[in-house]
Amino acid sequence: MVGILRILSFILLLTCIFVSLSVGLAAAARDRKFTWEISYQHKSLDCYKKLAVAINGLTPGPTISAEQGDRIIVNVTNNLFMENVAIHWHGIRQRGTPWSDGTDGVSQCAIMPGETYTYEFVVDRAGTFMYHSHYGLQREAGLYGLITVSLPVGVSEPFSYDFDREIILSDWYHNTTYETATDLASIPFLWVGEPQSLLINGRGNYSCSGLAASVCNSTNPECLPSNLTVISGKTYRLRIASLTSLSALSFQIEDHEMTVVEADGHYVEPFVVNNLYIYSGETYSVLVTANQNSSRNYWTTINVVSRQPNTPNGIAIFNYDPIDYQKLPPTNPPPGPLWNDTKSQVNQSRAIKARQGFIVTPPKKPDRVIVLLNTQNTIDGYVRWSLNNVSHTLPSTPLLIAIKENMTGVFDPNPPPDDNDSANYDIYSVANNTNSVSSSSIYRLQFNSTVDIILQNANTMTANVSESHPWHLHGHDFWVLGYGEGKFNLSRDTETYNLADPIMKNTVPLHPYGWTALRFKADNPGVWLFHCHIEAHFFLGMLVVFESGVEQVGDIPLSNYGCGQTKSFIKP
Amino acid sequence: MVGILRILSFILLLTCIFVSLSVGLAAAARDRKFTWEISYQHKSLDCYKKLAVAINGLTPGPTISAEQGDRIIVNVTNNLFMENVAIHWHGIRQRGTPWSDGTDGVSQCAIMPGETYTYEFVVDRAGTFMYHSHYGLQREAGLYGLITVSLPVGVSEPFSYDFDREIILSDWYHNTTYETATDLASIPFLWVGEPQSLLINGRGNYSCSGLAASVCNSTNPECLPSNLTVISGKTYRLRIASLTSLSALSFQIEDHEMTVVEADGHYVEPFVVNNLYIYSGETYSVLVTANQNSSRNYWTTINVVSRQPNTPNGIAIFNYDPIDYQKLPPTNPPPGPLWNDTKSQVNQSRAIKARQGFIVTPPKKPDRVIVLLNTQNTIDGYVRWSLNNVSHTLPSTPLLIAIKENMTGVFDPNPPPDDNDSANYDIYSVANNTNSVSSSSIYRLQFNSTVDIILQNANTMTANVSESHPWHLHGHDFWVLGYGEGKFNLSRDTETYNLADPIMKNTVPLHPYGWTALRFKADNPGVWLFHCHIEAHFFLGMLVVFESGVEQVGDIPLSNYGCGQTKSFIKP
Repeated sequence: MVGILRILSFILLLTCIFVSLSVGLAAAARDRKFTWEISYQHKSLDCYKKLAVAINGLTPGPTISAEQGDRIIVNVTNNLFMENVAIHWHGIRQRGTPWSDGTDGVSQCAIMPGETYTYEFVVDRAGTFMYHSHYGLQREAGLYGLITVSLPVGVSEPFSYDFDREIILSDWYHNTTYETATDLASIPFLWVGEPQSLLINGRGNYSCSGLAASVCNSTNPECLPSNLTVISGKTYRLRIASLTSLSALSFQIEDHEMTVVEADGHYVEPFVVNNLYIYSGETYSVLVTANQNSSRNYWTTINVVSRQPNTPNGIAIFNYDPIDYQKLPPTNPPPGPLWNDTKSQVNQSRAIKARQGFIVTPPKKPDRVIVLLNTQNTIDGYVRWSLNNVSHTLPSTPLLIAIKENMTGVFDPNPPPDDNDSANYDIYSVANNTNSVSSSSIYRLQFNSTVDIILQNANTMTANVSESHPWHLHGHDFWVLGYGEGKFNLSRDTETYNLADPIMKNTVPLHPYGWTALRFKADNPGVWLFHCHIEAHFFLGMLVVFESGVEQVGDIPLSNYGCGQTKSFIKP
Repeated sequence: MVGILRILSFILLLTCIFVSLSVGLAAAARDRKFTWEISYQHKSLDCYKKLAVAINGLTPGPTISAEQGDRIIVNVTNNLFMENVAIHWHGIRQRGTPWSDGTDGVSQCAIMPGETYTYEFVVDRAGTFMYHSHYGLQREAGLYGLITVSLPVGVSEPFSYDFDREIILSDWYHNTTYETATDLASIPFLWVGEPQSLLINGRGNYSCSGLAASVCNSTNPECLPSNLTVISGKTYRLRIASLTSLSALSFQIEDHEMTVVEADGHYVEPFVVNNLYIYSGETYSVLVTANQNSSRNYWTTINVVSRQPNTPNGIAIFNYDPIDYQKLPPTNPPPGPLWNDTKSQVNQSRAIKARQGFIVTPPKKPDRVIVLLNTQNTIDGYVRWSLNNVSHTLPSTPLLIAIKENMTGVFDPNPPPDDNDSANYDIYSVANNTNSVSSSSIYRLQFNSTVDIILQNANTMTANVSESHPWHLHGHDFWVLGYGEGKFNLSRDTETYNLADPIMKNTVPLHPYGWTALRFKADNPGVWLFHCHIEAHFFLGMLVVFESGVEQVGDIPLSNYGCGQTKSFIKP
């Protein structure tokens, strides 16, 4: 009896410990507070000295590390002198906090110089995400960083590794954002062109030949190649994010295979690649094992794909400890894949499927299908990018406030078209600008409805050119139902949709002359951008706005107000 | 009898005509509406290509021409992409419209990109004025122009001339305003340095040697010398304004004397000069007669004074019609006076007196005397400029709104000092930064009181250097009571004040190691800046704020709200 009691006591004790631990685990969700000062700083990220936007002096900005369920609180003080700022938390769905999405013109009035604004949101899902400016062309000036969200203690990833590493990929221009914006908004149009450098973790190497050392100094330690130091035999999870303004990239580590395991915060059915294609706005985790000759270093490289490159490849050192991390590998850096091997890119896109055991099944049918024809246009002589011949503009009054408060005159109440005679459009002919218009109109989606988006690529205004566009959706993840070449056929191609194990993502490429089909549930009350993540394309109209369930949105913080027609709510 | 009636009828008729004309004259005061789009444009003002801020494509901006009593209505649309804007109407007192003063941090929230703001004010006094950005360092980027206000029809100036001409003087930097601001706000401090060029009506000539033609092209017609074409024998009124960021200038026309007749909108007792000293923020009218050899052209030049120059003199062509305006004069441009001939500068300052018949007599005694010791300081390692060892900052909430609405927490309620032991301060010793602080405190002046300001210059933080500072008062004109060398003596020097015929001005120089004494009546309800018009000095704290009679200020337009703590008035 005593023995039984003792055993029962012991079981009770164990139970108590377990319950305590569980409570402890649940209570682990906590507030993580950050204080950020945004300022211009002289940086020589690729050896060429120019002003970059920095967070607490850093370009790229600091990583936000949190645990699933944490509340992130970021106090952002704008010290940019005359320039406003807004920061988007890319991949964070902002469920219940659509006003914290950080998108100028949509969710908030930009933060003016001297002001402090507080972003507050929950990271409700583990994975690799990013943040970046969502104001004008400000992202291009270096305002970006990573968000890594870990699983709660005691919950494991479905793959194992020894160490976690972060890799931010970006491209870098020497022009100021004001020069670029002026060129893009001018007649004659001046395209931003290919970037001067590709950066890995904020470091590139521009050739300084012919430039004064005060302008460009190849020996500046700021532009030493970044290094990824590894221990032989260990496996690393590389969390890779692309924050490029323009470039689609291929990432690879010389002689090391990579296993793709995560995309945009979702587990991928693992597959092995020699090079990872990554488009602006995407994140991936890959596993790589340091299983090569540990007596030397290896190259990590990125090169431009999808556009004819005019930028040297970016390099970093995959450094086997204890070799000096500055010791260059004895080989030439691998050149990477051909820029125009579209087939290889499409194949990799298709290879990304949801991991078995983690599949979220999409609804079988959509309630609505929106076909978005991607074209370039001229409107009143200005070069623009358009969807269904509509080049979209954002108002100076945040749409979330305008819609929630039933304001009139902020945006065009006539909805943009769900299609534009896509069945008869010749995607291989030079865009002829028929009926091109610019508009502030938005798509209003029935709450909880299922929406399919068919992104249809086409020829630009230059013969035989079709660009790739990385499309990013705010506030939601979507299922990637398929990729195709040529013209989408509404009756035939829908049959090929992957409804079995589609990956969920927030950013997806649209390949040249191809189509990409997505499905999502409009189940997050708010107003959300869906746009090409190439900054110049977005700036010139390649965006649409989805509204859904705004009547369910709670009180928008007053700090989101103040600009445009929201001044009408001022009552002194 | 019939004859008498006829005569009476005729007199009546004449009277009626006269009354009608008078009514007509009174009714001539009218609204003058302007629609301005502010944008960045590529300009080559001195042959070097850089972005300038333009109004409707123009840098400098268009002249506002009006008649005394007119209401000026300027709809300003900000198309600066990510940068805000505010425009100050320099010399316009804004009586009854203090919210239209265009000063960020004082009278309004800056205009955000995409927004349109309407400035509305009466030009109640004839004369030559100017407008310019009053936001960050934006003036330096070229956002400025002239305001000329003519007398009502039938009222004559007390001098005669044949034609009216406008001359805008400025200096020009190749750095962006963001680079300059970053340098000024950094540790280590990086001074903006002397300008690359001096501009006359927006044209300078930088040496392009060694630079690519795409960057700097000496044959660009944008940077041809500007020309002032005259007809032999005619007299010209030159309305000259200095919009420099930094430089004090001497202006002269080779072999032509000038008669000074107006300063800051007030008639000057005429005096003749070979060169006109003009400080940033000042306007003058001078009369010049084309009485030289009409078979050649002459140089118009500007050169830097008060600072050791490192900038080539600015040139323009004083062109005798019908000679080709591009034909260079056969002589070398006159070099202008020595930069450090302070005595000559002080003498010219002293020569500027109110014109007989137009003297406004100042009150005999002040109600309050504020001594402002001008120094350079370091505060927490940052280089600042200070008054009485207080380096002033402006809040992100406009002070006019904060005070009128009794908001707390916007500015330091403890007033700054009216003096700082000036009797014992050694103005010839290097500033030692004792007790230097930065503060948002303001001076509150009793309404309708008479205030004397003694500007006392001193040594900077560099041995044997005392700068000149052009001080500008918003909302008022002041009487210039005197200039002196060395330390001001409160008992002795007040006896030397010119109370007989002091000129009224809104901007006045403080010469190196000297003092300048001013008097004004605080009779304009509002909140008003008084500051050094050197943009970098203002940016780094060389300003004070005067509040007076805000309780009499009418309703501030809601469009002035929206930033900082004015968001607390938002009631959705």
